[in-house]
Amino acid sequence: MSTTLPTPFRLTAVDGPDQPEPTPALEHLYRGFEQELLVPLWTEIGDLMPLHPRSRAVPHLWRWERLVELAARAGDLVPVGRGGERRAIALANPTLAGRPFATPTLWAAIQYLMPGEDAPEHRHTQHAFRFVVEGEGVWTVVGGDPVPMRRGDFLPQAGWNWHAHHNATDAPMAWIDGLDIPLQHLTEAQFFEFGREEISDAERIEPERSRSERLWGHPGLRPLAASAGSRGTPLLAYRWEHTDRALTDQLRLEQEGFGGTVEAGHAAVRFTNPADGSDVLPTIRAEFHRVVRGAETTPVRETGSSVYQVFDGSGTVTVGDQRWSVTRGDLFVVPSWEPFSARSEAGRTDSDAGHLDLFRFSDAPVFEALGLDRTQKDSR
Amino acid sequence: MSTTLPTPFRLTAVDGPDQPEPTPALEHLYRGFEQELLVPLWTEIGDLMPLHPRSRAVPHLWRWERLVELAARAGDLVPVGRGGERRAIALANPTLAGRPFATPTLWAAIQYLMPGEDAPEHRHTQHAFRFVVEGEGVWTVVGGDPVPMRRGDFLPQAGWNWHAHHNATDAPMAWIDGLDIPLQHLTEAQFFEFGREEISDAERIEPERSRSERLWGHPGLRPLAASAGSRGTPLLAYRWEHTDRALTDQLRLEQEGFGGTVEAGHAAVRFTNPADGSDVLPTIRAEFHRVVRGAETTPVRETGSSVYQVFDGSGTVTVGDQRWSVTRGDLFVVPSWEPFSARSEAGRTDSDAGHLDLFRFSDAPVFEALGLDRTQKDSR
Amino acid sequence: MSTTLPTPFRLTAVDGPDQPEPTPALEHLYRGFEQELLVPLWTEIGDLMPLHPRSRAVPHLWRWERLVELAARAGDLVPVGRGGERRAIALANPTLAGRPFATPTLWAAIQYLMPGEDAPEHRHTQHAFRFVVEGEGVWTVVGGDPVPMRRGDFLPQAGWNWHAHHNATDAPMAWIDGLDIPLQHLTEAQFFEFGREEISDAERIEPERSRSERLWGHPGLRPLAASAGSRGTPLLAYRWEHTDRALTDQLRLEQEGFGGTVEAGHAAVRFTNPADGSDVLPTIRAEFHRVVRGAETTPVRETGSSVYQVFDGSGTVTVGDQRWSVTRGDLFVVPSWEPFSARSEAGRTDSDAGHLDLFRFSDAPVFEALGLDRTQKDSR
Amino acid sequence: MSTTLPTPFRLTAVDGPDQPEPTPALEHLYRGFEQELLVPLWTEIGDLMPLHPRSRAVPHLWRWERLVELAARAGDLVPVGRGGERRAIALANPTLAGRPFATPTLWAAIQYLMPGEDAPEHRHTQHAFRFVVEGEGVWTVVGGDPVPMRRGDFLPQAGWNWHAHHNATDAPMAWIDGLDIPLQHLTEAQFFEFGREEISDAERIEPERSRSERLWGHPGLRPLAASAGSRGTPLLAYRWEHTDRALTDQLRLEQEGFGGTVEAGHAAVRFTNPADGSDVLPTIRAEFHRVVRGAETTPVRETGSSVYQVFDGSGTVTVGDQRWSVTRGDLFVVPSWEPFSARSEAGRTDSDAGHLDLFRFSDAPVFEALGLDRTQKDSR
Repeated sequence: MSTTLPTPFRLTAVDGPDQPEPTPALEHLYRGFEQELLVPLWTEIGDLMPLHPRSRAVPHLWRWERLVELAARAGDLVPVGRGGERRAIALANPTLAGRPFATPTLWAAIQYLMPGEDAPEHRHTQHAFRFVVEGEGVWTVVGGDPVPMRRGDFLPQAGWNWHAHHNATDAPMAWIDGLDIPLQHLTEAQFFEFGREEISDAERIEPERSRSERLWGHPGLRPLAASAGSRGTPLLAYRWEHTDRALTDQLRLEQEGFGGTVEAGHAAVRFTNPADGSDVLPTIRAEFHRVVRGAETTPVRETGSSVYQVFDGSGTVTVGDQRWSVTRGDLFVVPSWEPFSARSEAGRTDSDAGHLDLFRFSDAPVFEALGLDRTQKDSR
Repeated sequence: MSTTLPTPFRLTAVDGPDQPEPTPALEHLYRGFEQELLVPLWTEIGDLMPLHPRSRAVPHLWRWERLVELAARAGDLVPVGRGGERRAIALANPTLAGRPFATPTLWAAIQYLMPGEDAPEHRHTQHAFRFVVEGEGVWTVVGGDPVPMRRGDFLPQAGWNWHAHHNATDAPMAWIDGLDIPLQHLTEAQFFEFGREEISDAERIEPERSRSERLWGHPGLRPLAASAGSRGTPLLAYRWEHTDRALTDQLRLEQEGFGGTVEAGHAAVRFTNPADGSDVLPTIRAEFHRVVRGAETTPVRETGSSVYQVFDGSGTVTVGDQRWSVTRGDLFVVPSWEPFSARSEAGRTDSDAGHLDLFRFSDAPVFEALGLDRTQKDSR
Repeated sequence: MSTTLPTPFRLTAVDGPDQPEPTPALEHLYRGFEQELLVPLWTEIGDLMPLHPRSRAVPHLWRWERLVELAARAGDLVPVGRGGERRAIALANPTLAGRPFATPTLWAAIQYLMPGEDAPEHRHTQHAFRFVVEGEGVWTVVGGDPVPMRRGDFLPQAGWNWHAHHNATDAPMAWIDGLDIPLQHLTEAQFFEFGREEISDAERIEPERSRSERLWGHPGLRPLAASAGSRGTPLLAYRWEHTDRALTDQLRLEQEGFGGTVEAGHAAVRFTNPADGSDVLPTIRAEFHRVVRGAETTPVRETGSSVYQVFDGSGTVTVGDQRWSVTRGDLFVVPSWEPFSARSEAGRTDSDAGHLDLFRFSDAPVFEALGLDRTQKDSR
Repeated sequence: MSTTLPTPFRLTAVDGPDQPEPTPALEHLYRGFEQELLVPLWTEIGDLMPLHPRSRAVPHLWRWERLVELAARAGDLVPVGRGGERRAIALANPTLAGRPFATPTLWAAIQYLMPGEDAPEHRHTQHAFRFVVEGEGVWTVVGGDPVPMRRGDFLPQAGWNWHAHHNATDAPMAWIDGLDIPLQHLTEAQFFEFGREEISDAERIEPERSRSERLWGHPGLRPLAASAGSRGTPLLAYRWEHTDRALTDQLRLEQEGFGGTVEAGHAAVRFTNPADGSDVLPTIRAEFHRVVRGAETTPVRETGSSVYQVFDGSGTVTVGDQRWSVTRGDLFVVPSWEPFSARSEAGRTDSDAGHLDLFRFSDAPVFEALGLDRTQKDSR
């Protein structure tokens, strides 16, 4: 049992339009409430039952350049090993009390692995993924299956799978980790186990593709021998070549007059579990959006929160009343019910195509599972 | 957008077995983290990724006697009306920072309505129920359907249904409210709307049964005209006579040698949605447990938290390392992964049968929907 | 393997608007088809791919009076025992080739048990139910649970449950059996096993209620100890008092101006599995309809077929271009896509209320599971 | 309504171990049954309720060589056009009364299209697919989307989609069609509508890939803009290159010691709906099996029936007590509960690899949807 001590708290009778008259009798009553650990609804209702979600988090942007710089310094100063487990540095939303929570439910961190380094094996109920905005040469060993990581790849890993990381190259590598750590912290669901100290020699040999891709990476084809399996996708890598091709196909279909895009100039895919078409992870949705040069997406509000990373191109993104110019690697958060839109614009790091490519992850599956999802399109 | 200001925070390099050496260079790095709103995993992992859930909440007991006394005083001092909406006084777990949260996800309150009083109509996405441990004479008008409330009745009401309360008698009435307010606060999903100021005259006439019971309260029978409807049960009242009879039947079946109980001397039912057999509310499970005189339930740990109210009888309940003698009306909480067991013993308020009757509600549907449910039976 | 011999068949070249010219070359081709066991689409398409379902079955009515008379004679002449298993006499749709199929998918039979007789225990994958239009005193022992049968009771029993019948009285009793025998015959899914020769003495003692009702017969309450179980309802008896009350409630709600009925003067309930709200049996839907004196239901066409039995009252039913005056016990079939309506009228066997009460079962769950369900309301 | 006349039938009292004594009284009773259109269970139970499925169909083999020869002759003699709709010639199981049913639930036909020919547009509730064992140059226009067909491709098309065929080459092309015509005929669910007489000029231009593939053919990626859609896969072509690669991957994984195959030397994939992982069609499962040279599959019995076509290689297949040497294009059926196994052996038409490649389709989704699926592995 926790040994946390009770927090003394004090109820204050205030003079307000919907509040009872602050008389001595009321003060006496409030002292009784405090003594019995009770809090009335009428003093809290505005905070707890607002007319629409008002997030404790705020929109915020982190520059990739600064993240990589600090991560590289951590590479020199902070060893990776048992106990600390990972050289991961998390985004801390400005208004979430210094906790490493990008949003109230989502964790986003830059992870950094030095040449030849290993991050030790463990497993946890938290659902996780990796997304690679630049570099290659690391692979993650998931349940004994080495999964190479390269620019543009999305690598999900459902909770309770053993995993370790291995950098086989002579260069450091950085990528982002997304997890549902805050959600599982808030709901108090999490379990953790330490695994092997070292991965095997066989697991150190770079594979062409992971075994999961060889079984599950063929479009519309299910291996007959596959067991139903646990929750979360059995496919451990979604390669950039497929994502890029799918987005290109959507935009060409639009050009040919057939639709296929979300709206004009805005292509998007969701990463899904090939076994059942559901989200890759029970608590995390992952998507890739492409906005063509000059296009702007319709502002949308949704219950639940998102983290975006700019994968390529540059442009302007608007979250609530914040607006930022963004470029490759930049990360930003969209709190619950804040309207979001993105505009693709010319910038210095653009690829030839000049599209704005955005990777996104969110807690949408939680809201859908509980029937709490709502969406509203704002007029621009 | 929220106008909350950023929380300044400070990372401290500590000397620990799994921590990097606290050098000036590390301190400089940590200042860089602070400036960029970053927090490393290695200083937080013990809190965020424990080996098993360690709740921020603690086991705690509230005595019904004291709750009713304070609620009655609030009845004299605090009017019910638009703005404050309800004369509800919530259990505040000692270690949850003075917030009106019985557990990290559950709200439990005593509500009190004076003779002739109305609580005004509103609706919200939060899922709610009422449970009546004593008294009668109030009815809740849900979507225009007056639902009488009497001792032993369980009255669920899924989110976004209009509802008001009306006390038609010349005596005050108290009952408990259960909601998922903390969960929706944490995930930031909630919407709220004000309804009519007054219920209609027709809604003030006491019905024998609610319309919902006349449509949906027949065992195994679905009205053909019923639309699929939204999430949450269409049945607005689960009457004590049915609950009591079901528990009595289980114990008799056990006596006849046929099983039917959870374990020897322990009968239990779950309140379910007759349309699909699911939990009555998407985020809240409700159950009723009966422990026969002298029996004790096996200690069980579960992810997720529960609130119990003693409906009848007396006994001893053990939650983690806390043990209390309980009697009618007493409320207590079981935080995530704390073992719970109950023993029925003779006491002063017992009914003839002498069973310990416990009403329970929990956040289990959330954990099951997200695949985060785990259960473990401890040896006694 | 079946030893059935090949059926010789002959293709005839016909002169028709959509047929190839019947030349000697075509005749030669058709002989080639025959030799290789081939049949062209173009000669069969009108039968196999009609514009809408045209049933091989026809609407037909069987008079209860005649069924009971013949069943009683069978009671004298045909013993019940191992091998023949049941004294059941099935409705054979006039155009289904003398097979005991009420419709292409449904079996409906009168079963008759003499005083003191037992029908031996067996089990089969075919899903079954009993419905009692008159009499009492028999109980069915399902998996060791004696289930009394009385007028108005609906008694479903999912496939692969052991069951036997026992007539404890000194009077014969008749009831109807409904099964999916034709469907399982057509799809070739069926298994069968013989059980005990005799039921036990304990199973011969009349219970007040079956154990299944004591566990599952409480509205909206699920026994916590119940395992998920197999497909099909765990509740083995749906008693007339509940069905009657539910229909009465619907009609009163309609009178009070609140809806609840299917249409004016037409109340109806579906018998459902309390564990999940699904149909009582995976392949059979069962409903009860009440049409008030003078009311007439809207003609409806549905894919799939139904069998109706008049439970009480009298009236006129219209199926396709057939129209019959019906009274208590009469059985009739509605083939796929034939419009059906019922009108309640005064008759000689009516109860005081004068409603037309109709029990109905159909293969609707099959059509819904396969996405083949369609409904169309005709103008009267 | 059907104008089919009642079938007179005659019940014969027989002398048998489980039959009532054939007395004049019994004969009189049977005449009464006939008059009232009744059939007793006791004379039919052996046929209707066997101990396990005994199919009315028999194992049978059709040689591709003969099918193509006859289809080519039909190409000369039978025009394709409105009314006959398709030049499709169906397998007629020897014991299914000359009806064009490969099994009691499945239709399998060779379809043949002459150079430049079009098959007119229509739609029907029957679910369909095409599989190409040789040739190319035809495309099917499904809902306006031209879908090229080439050797090895599997092309499903859910019910109620408009479709036409177009042969753009100067050579005839043959392929097989699979449908659930018998099932929908037996259950009487089918609807049919005629479409346009001609496809548009735009639909006559050969696409590289169908639009459906551009939207849905990327592994694990769902187009965000896609609506939930109706039942059945939105992906209209499963290309040979993917199928072949998936099977090759499985066999290599097995060689590397990791499993992935069904059993030693036996790789297999199921074609699935990428939107939800279910079977491509609500009533039809499609699979591809590869048996390596020298390997033999374990005999398996299943409820439900299958049709196989040899895609490549040669070998021996055993169905019940039938055994055939098979080679490219040969088709055979496996009736319900008949054990099936395949052995790969050297033959004259083999590709270099020498595997036996088998395409299979079955009615398994029907059995699973209704809970009637059973499987049993026999010892070889």
